[in-house]
Amino acid sequence: MNDNLTADRPSFVTHLECSMTGERYDADMLHGLSRVGRPLLVRYDLDAVGAALSRDALSTRPTDLWRWRELLPVRHTRDIVSLGEIETPMVPIPVSGGANVLVKDEGRLPTGSFKARGLVMAVAMAKELGVTRIAMPTNGNAGAALAAYASRCGIETIVFCPEDTPEINVREIAMQGARVWRVNGLIDDCGAIVGKGATEGRWFDFSTLKEPYRIEGKKTMGLELAAQFGWDLPDAIFYPTGGGTGLIGMWKAFDELEKLGWISSKRPRMYAVQASGCAPIVRAFEAGEEHAERWEDAHTIAMGIRVPRAVGDFLILRAVRESGGKALGVGDPAILKAVEDCARRDGLLLCPEGGATLAAYREALRTGEVDEDERVVLFNCATGLKYPMPPSPQTLDRHAPIDFDAL
Amino acid sequence: MNDNLTADRPSFVTHLECSMTGERYDADMLHGLSRVGRPLLVRYDLDAVGAALSRDALSTRPTDLWRWRELLPVRHTRDIVSLGEIETPMVPIPVSGGANVLVKDEGRLPTGSFKARGLVMAVAMAKELGVTRIAMPTNGNAGAALAAYASRCGIETIVFCPEDTPEINVREIAMQGARVWRVNGLIDDCGAIVGKGATEGRWFDFSTLKEPYRIEGKKTMGLELAAQFGWDLPDAIFYPTGGGTGLIGMWKAFDELEKLGWISSKRPRMYAVQASGCAPIVRAFEAGEEHAERWEDAHTIAMGIRVPRAVGDFLILRAVRESGGKALGVGDPAILKAVEDCARRDGLLLCPEGGATLAAYREALRTGEVDEDERVVLFNCATGLKYPMPPSPQTLDRHAPIDFDAL
Repeated sequence: MNDNLTADRPSFVTHLECSMTGERYDADMLHGLSRVGRPLLVRYDLDAVGAALSRDALSTRPTDLWRWRELLPVRHTRDIVSLGEIETPMVPIPVSGGANVLVKDEGRLPTGSFKARGLVMAVAMAKELGVTRIAMPTNGNAGAALAAYASRCGIETIVFCPEDTPEINVREIAMQGARVWRVNGLIDDCGAIVGKGATEGRWFDFSTLKEPYRIEGKKTMGLELAAQFGWDLPDAIFYPTGGGTGLIGMWKAFDELEKLGWISSKRPRMYAVQASGCAPIVRAFEAGEEHAERWEDAHTIAMGIRVPRAVGDFLILRAVRESGGKALGVGDPAILKAVEDCARRDGLLLCPEGGATLAAYREALRTGEVDEDERVVLFNCATGLKYPMPPSPQTLDRHAPIDFDAL
Repeated sequence: MNDNLTADRPSFVTHLECSMTGERYDADMLHGLSRVGRPLLVRYDLDAVGAALSRDALSTRPTDLWRWRELLPVRHTRDIVSLGEIETPMVPIPVSGGANVLVKDEGRLPTGSFKARGLVMAVAMAKELGVTRIAMPTNGNAGAALAAYASRCGIETIVFCPEDTPEINVREIAMQGARVWRVNGLIDDCGAIVGKGATEGRWFDFSTLKEPYRIEGKKTMGLELAAQFGWDLPDAIFYPTGGGTGLIGMWKAFDELEKLGWISSKRPRMYAVQASGCAPIVRAFEAGEEHAERWEDAHTIAMGIRVPRAVGDFLILRAVRESGGKALGVGDPAILKAVEDCARRDGLLLCPEGGATLAAYREALRTGEVDEDERVVLFNCATGLKYPMPPSPQTLDRHAPIDFDAL
């Protein structure tokens, strides 16, 4: 019924290239990082894409992620894996945000987070390239998306998460068929275990940006935004930044769309939002550095952005700077306040990382970094339901007289 | 950007009528139950709808719930309330279900359940009709949807839920701005408190089917299904049935679509699925009764369908019988098994009530009630993330040597 999933449509991948050195790598082969240990980027014959597909033709397709097929790496329709990757809605938050603030609610995707975008693509490519066993370090949501998609196509998964990952995330990963382990450390400690196993040939390493295709899936956030805004991008994007795949992916999407002639050279200012308890990108941005050092003693309630070190640090910093944006840190109290205000006043329950973007927007408004007339998009990267909430109320005794005035 | 929310489009409501006696009631006035204590149904001038809107025109609109505006009761665009009511995807579950089985994944709606459909409409109408204070009994998901939409438009809400409602639901309701109370009883005990307060004029009663508009919102499940199936309905629908608003609403939708000439007279067999620990509709169906008595000692892990008495019982039974379907009960072990299989093998985490529909489908397949060649839709009414899952695994010590073979 959705021909995005069944129609044979070409992919226009030509090759991959090192994001640091530009060195070329062959498409249609299994790759990890480049020779210098940096992410590989997928390149397309965009002239051919433009000849094969127009914005008008695109607008007649169902609006899910797979409508962007010509700008995605999967070659064969049979390798598509899907759990219903809908176009996520943009929800105004006029009271807690402002008249021109939209939340892109990524919690509506399969497994309840934007991680589905990256993992659906990476798993489809793993299937296409014959991978049978995958391991991954995760703060929770990426592991859930990996488990779901990999189980769906019979690929074995082993997932490692920090010891204090919320129970609901760990259980979800296990329910969806992965073998999951807690580790007494942070996500990069989990990543070290995954890396060691990969070196021994035990599994394929699916860490953020260590395989080339998650970024292609995340790219669809930028493609969708462009279409949803009628091919005229918003003025600013606030993006919760851990590994930064989405920010890098959106930036890549905008470039590809401009080369296709589908958008102008106008770009949103990209704001990379981090928690002040784990803000390596903010520190590097402010110091004018090209790379970000590991953040020691990382701590924040926004676990999804508790990432002490990002292998794509220079790509994040480059996109933020090119865009005229900034890297911004916000404290946990401001995050909690933003989540509470948005839920109570606009009826939208954000995840803490989404709350961080609202907190950062408010601070940016206060400092004059953004203007309230500007069209702004905040990314709510996951459903707020996966996260701790305040304790619940006392019980009313239905057998006793009820004091209605006190309810 | 979504003109479904901003365009002025007419509503074609002519009047309301009692579902039992057919007595007419004026539109554009606040109503509860009819004079004989039964639900009111909203009626439209379908000839005028047909003159104003075609299937082709409809297909050019964004696919969300509000594209059905001409078949919905809201008169004024300013009264629309929205948190992004997307068209929910249909996800195949080939391994745990079968080649022709699709899950309509209602967990993607705002607040994570199909309750959003009914409540977005009921709250918009409450806003239109000047209601300022609403109370509701809930097993969790309806209360969350009510709280979110009502808070969004400044309507005060008081919500009562059974004592053992999962913590996550109660907290979600509170976060979204409602005053919420646990009550030592079941949902109809909560309903009695709401009813008493309503009689005293303290609030408007938003219990299932006690106001006329939730059913109009739920109707969109049937409208969407028709559009998604290319106006040729599936052979069978398995629907988790507590209050039954959705089943009644879909049946009403199919009637309206046929009168519009958009579908034929062909109908799916409707299977009302209940938990065997709380199966009043199943008991009444099997006994050939028109009404269902209260089920005593109700118990099931599928709390959303733990509804001992439904005010719309006769409407559910009538639809099921007219359709050639059945009411089916399934035990908790079969529900858990279905949830586990679907998550582990197809990567889709159902809620227990959704699991109940898969369990019922499997049993119906075994008994020959359905054929594996038939096109079947199962309703997953909420995200599986709101529900208890098996405990999570032990911690791996990253400082000790790791036995990779044991992972």
